[in-house]
Amino acid sequence: MELYLIRHGIAQEQSPTIPDGDRQLTKKGKDKTQRVAQRLQAIGVEFDLILTSPLVRSQQTAQILMDQGLAPQLESFSPLAPGEDIPQGIAYLTAEYRHRSHRCLALVGHQPDLANWAEYLIFGSPQGKLIVKKAGIIGLTLPSWDCPPGEGQLFLLTPPRWLV
Amino acid sequence: MELYLIRHGIAQEQSPTIPDGDRQLTKKGKDKTQRVAQRLQAIGVEFDLILTSPLVRSQQTAQILMDQGLAPQLESFSPLAPGEDIPQGIAYLTAEYRHRSHRCLALVGHQPDLANWAEYLIFGSPQGKLIVKKAGIIGLTLPSWDCPPGEGQLFLLTPPRWLV
Repeated sequence: MELYLIRHGIAQEQSPTIPDGDRQLTKKGKDKTQRVAQRLQAIGVEFDLILTSPLVRSQQTAQILMDQGLAPQLESFSPLAPGEDIPQGIAYLTAEYRHRSHRCLALVGHQPDLANWAEYLIFGSPQGKLIVKKAGIIGLTLPSWDCPPGEGQLFLLTPPRWLV
Repeated sequence: MELYLIRHGIAQEQSPTIPDGDRQLTKKGKDKTQRVAQRLQAIGVEFDLILTSPLVRSQQTAQILMDQGLAPQLESFSPLAPGEDIPQGIAYLTAEYRHRSHRCLALVGHQPDLANWAEYLIFGSPQGKLIVKKAGIIGLTLPSWDCPPGEGQLFLLTPPRWLV
């Protein structure tokens, strides 16, 4: 099983006039995310499903990946919102998706949550050791969707600069 | 400080007629390593120094990086040979290089040793969690050359397929 964790692209700065969940990708953020999506397609990456945080900047990022034809299906997945309980999110993910035949999922979300997801799956606990840039990608392998946290391996960690 | 750990390219298979240290890169191994080196140059990566395992397949890999103009200097560094004591190698590296002004080093060597080097520097002990393909690259940041093992962070792990 392969799991890609993709951080949203560059978004509007935090502001008292914009609710955090409504912040949009900037033009630069859209362009760079688009180029990352094109590169993923050129490499031959295909996701069975993209799950995204419900926040606008993640949904926009996920939609760019969809528009590039990288997956047939996109769903909003609330455990990917910032500050959610990650072990519970992983349990929910495996309970929800173990009976489907997906072999490659993409999760689109936020830092530091995404790196913590990856580190739970690889090491069994967060380590604070992965640097994930906006529109950056973590790739890991799992022996199965319902393996206990800590059995994953890391095969990819790439900033967008290394892709576009 | 940035440290890149680069695995040698595809080499001749093990054989009773070739001493392990004499195995050469294959044509395919040379070509792919060359394309990785070109990509590193395009991204703007520059090493102050490349240190390589003394084994032929690593030396050839390091020479390809040199020939691409990625570093002004190449040295053989015996602690990068397979099966060497890694904490001792790290101690030797920091003792040797802390007084130089290098900010970005590349180490060329072998698996599983290279991933173990990285994991010592990031976590303080080997974890067996990084998948490093031939001509693949690990990138990590260190607060200083003489920081204790376990203070590094990972910013890059890329198979060559994602670069070329």
